[in-house]
Amino acid sequence: MASIFTKIINGEIPSYKIAENENFIAILDAFPLVEGHVLVVPKKEVDKIFHLDKETYLGLMDFSYEIAQAIEKAVPCLRVGVAVIGLEVPHVHVHLVPLNTMQDINFTNPKIQLSAEKMNEIAEAIKSNI
Amino acid sequence: MASIFTKIINGEIPSYKIAENENFIAILDAFPLVEGHVLVVPKKEVDKIFHLDKETYLGLMDFSYEIAQAIEKAVPCLRVGVAVIGLEVPHVHVHLVPLNTMQDINFTNPKIQLSAEKMNEIAEAIKSNI
Repeated sequence: MASIFTKIINGEIPSYKIAENENFIAILDAFPLVEGHVLVVPKKEVDKIFHLDKETYLGLMDFSYEIAQAIEKAVPCLRVGVAVIGLEVPHVHVHLVPLNTMQDINFTNPKIQLSAEKMNEIAEAIKSNI
Repeated sequence: MASIFTKIINGEIPSYKIAENENFIAILDAFPLVEGHVLVVPKKEVDKIFHLDKETYLGLMDFSYEIAQAIEKAVPCLRVGVAVIGLEVPHVHVHLVPLNTMQDINFTNPKIQLSAEKMNEIAEAIKSNI
């Protein structure tokens, strides 16, 4: 069965899209830890990041670098943190999280809820900085 | 002042070294979340990962990929997780953490303490899989 990210990539499930190219997509995390929490996902549906072929892996990291620069410009934060955990959805996804404290990237924290208007506003702010 | 990682790279502070090349070093985290928790560090002392020049950044990620493959072979785990936070030491370091549960990569957890003998044993096991 297609992962939730494949369904997003195929347009079957809506998302707040930040950027997309032939191989990767960046979207707002629908269940963010903080405002501006982005997921970068390879279109190739592979479970574990270190099981990606090297070329796809480095492409994913390269794409993430560009998105992170835009997040840093668009979202007030001390820096952009990175996490790849992947025990929940078996399709590689890189979390890019604007950090002000260590707690901002604690995945056991309750997720925040933002209005669709706010999500659109954040997505547009990041996109305009790419 | 040189960061603790620069002191380790210069051999002024001891470490459990996993691998090293001209630009990067991999060592066991001295304050591990779990057994086999590794740090990958660029020799260039830069605070924030997304402020590294692209070439150094992708080199760091490439080096981390090779180390992660070895960790996955040497340390019992479901997968190897990645985190870059960096609010504590202002010198880029990629955490590679063998994961069995989400809690294994919660940086607010108390760190585990391992004997020097155990740390050496883990370092050797990872090294032998590179």
